[in-house]
Amino acid sequence: MTVPSRPARGFPRSEFEARAARAKALMTEAGLDGLLVTIKANVRYFSGFDSQFWESPTRPWFLLVPREGGPVAVIPEIGQPGMAQTWVEDIRTWPAPVPEDDGVSLLAAAIAALPRRFGRIGAELGAETSLRMPAADFQRVRDAIRPLEIADGSAIIRRLRMIKSPAEVARIRHVCQLASDAFEALPARLAAGESEREACRKLRLELIGRGADDTPYVMGASGPGGYDNIVVGPTDRILGAGDLLIIDTGSVFDGYFCDFDRNFAFGAPDDAARRAHDVVYRATEAGIAAARPGATTTEVWRAMAAVLEAGGSIGNNVGRLGHGLGLEMTEPPSNRPGDDTPIAPGMVLTIEPGMLFAPGRMMVHEENLVVTEDGSALLTRRAPPEMPVIKA
Amino acid sequence: MTVPSRPARGFPRSEFEARAARAKALMTEAGLDGLLVTIKANVRYFSGFDSQFWESPTRPWFLLVPREGGPVAVIPEIGQPGMAQTWVEDIRTWPAPVPEDDGVSLLAAAIAALPRRFGRIGAELGAETSLRMPAADFQRVRDAIRPLEIADGSAIIRRLRMIKSPAEVARIRHVCQLASDAFEALPARLAAGESEREACRKLRLELIGRGADDTPYVMGASGPGGYDNIVVGPTDRILGAGDLLIIDTGSVFDGYFCDFDRNFAFGAPDDAARRAHDVVYRATEAGIAAARPGATTTEVWRAMAAVLEAGGSIGNNVGRLGHGLGLEMTEPPSNRPGDDTPIAPGMVLTIEPGMLFAPGRMMVHEENLVVTEDGSALLTRRAPPEMPVIKA
Repeated sequence: MTVPSRPARGFPRSEFEARAARAKALMTEAGLDGLLVTIKANVRYFSGFDSQFWESPTRPWFLLVPREGGPVAVIPEIGQPGMAQTWVEDIRTWPAPVPEDDGVSLLAAAIAALPRRFGRIGAELGAETSLRMPAADFQRVRDAIRPLEIADGSAIIRRLRMIKSPAEVARIRHVCQLASDAFEALPARLAAGESEREACRKLRLELIGRGADDTPYVMGASGPGGYDNIVVGPTDRILGAGDLLIIDTGSVFDGYFCDFDRNFAFGAPDDAARRAHDVVYRATEAGIAAARPGATTTEVWRAMAAVLEAGGSIGNNVGRLGHGLGLEMTEPPSNRPGDDTPIAPGMVLTIEPGMLFAPGRMMVHEENLVVTEDGSALLTRRAPPEMPVIKA
Repeated sequence: MTVPSRPARGFPRSEFEARAARAKALMTEAGLDGLLVTIKANVRYFSGFDSQFWESPTRPWFLLVPREGGPVAVIPEIGQPGMAQTWVEDIRTWPAPVPEDDGVSLLAAAIAALPRRFGRIGAELGAETSLRMPAADFQRVRDAIRPLEIADGSAIIRRLRMIKSPAEVARIRHVCQLASDAFEALPARLAAGESEREACRKLRLELIGRGADDTPYVMGASGPGGYDNIVVGPTDRILGAGDLLIIDTGSVFDGYFCDFDRNFAFGAPDDAARRAHDVVYRATEAGIAAARPGATTTEVWRAMAAVLEAGGSIGNNVGRLGHGLGLEMTEPPSNRPGDDTPIAPGMVLTIEPGMLFAPGRMMVHEENLVVTEDGSALLTRRAPPEMPVIKA
């Protein structure tokens, strides 16, 4: 077990300049004078602002990325020293929280003063995002800046963030490798008679001990011969002979996520579980092979779905077989019918086939990869072809 | 050091029935036919739905709490098995993600079918909250349910959640005690020559090892004779002689947060730091004494501010001196001028005085308490009156 060499934290100014330049080109195309962003991932993407303070829902934070000129931060006073460490030079603050006017008039003034050509700016209004500010305050800003309009700018943000820079990929690879180490160390630490919760706690300690900054997602589920969901859990259910356990983690290094899972058998798995594991393993192989420039996310989905169907899948309630990841644990695109996103170099994707193989028994695998010029490179270390067996 | 006895997880059905009953009474008062909630804390508050899946921003989740009848969950198919474990009986699902119609028509139909008396429902539109769904989809729901209107329901939710039940307080007390143990164990594990990040990692391992479910917030900041912010960090700054270190954690047990900090000196602190620590310690005492039924949050603020001012404070960029906490790390009310919330039994508050005592040097303390019939009870174990000194 070796922890891979750790990328330096943060990005050079040139990385943010490149992001802003690409954003500006897309704004011109879309007829927008600027972008307003409010969520942690987008503020960090454009500014580099790194804080855990987003955990507090009390205060809104605003960043404007104008089509002309540098970014403008409109933020609570408490964040000024942190924002001053980023490349953002124009920082305006108010003594939040002030519910009567929590940045509304300051933000409206900043928007109104942007160089104007199209008369509208873009905001996070579309799919897979939401505005991190009181909806009533957003309406107040809209009213205050008329005749300037706020349109949906989420398609631009999605296009930008979907293609990762080499420096972004290095961070995702680092946390994927570190989590691969943690998963590989886990079987020796798991024991029958302990709970799902205890198993997940052990993985969390491994992840943090090995250098993950945070482990916001460590889901665990188990059941006799298979688990019945991948959303609730871990619970206090005690693991014993015949159980399958899945643990899925979204862990973070320098702001970037891994998102993958591993399966474990307590005692020798039965034939149905063994077959299901093999089918989903092969579906993962098919997904990895399909994820290359020239293909679409729908084709990646189809490559996996064909193996799952032939292998006896009787259903899947996940709605897709993988997705993008980066500053968020799940990002566009989705490997699903109708998504049709062209796969392009720099995309980081999860390959996540799963199936119900018997009533109440699911099997889900997941790996993370980066798309290259002529194929892909795994960021995780491939799961073993057979489930690790814990003595039970 | 003892980990306090752990409360059982989850709540009996009667707890949710009581919450719904209080909500219904407030809806009648406010002229609302129901509440629509979309954020993790509110969905959990009314349903008991416990999942880490909120970490994925891809899918919206909706819960309706009607003024007449039981709650209605409108959720992604992937969440059905989990929601089925709660007291919610009416569960409607769609195979999310489906960006073309991600629950919009299903939600609109569910709202339209609610027993109608006032012709409007409440949603999370006000201060300290935001709608966790695409803003464009919210507009679609609004259009689809006309002439039904969506008004701001956040004042009702705030009133409900601000007063904790004994079972909620037990969870907060548990995580406060567990984090108090972790903080008390820390000085023996800290060492000069290590980074802020390493110090925070050690606390994280203590917290998880002692039974915290998650540690979403472990902020660390340091500097010679004082730290200059409490929002950015930890960084790779190396701790050494003369440094002050603050670590603040929002950690979780069964969905409920603690939120408090502790200060550490590397080598003997200088006189200014020692004096500042004493002033802020006494301000905390004053805040604890002031937080009792009959007082307001503004009076609690004033009690602390008076001590800080007399003690030589030259500023504070936090905007308040404490706040509510519970299912979120920060909740209403705020200890600040103008908040004027009457303190009432069952409120859980942080008492968080802080001051700039020299340019670039801050000192912040924090404790958590529950308001009782005739005063308050500390949930954290009081910080030591003098900073623990780490050999440096």
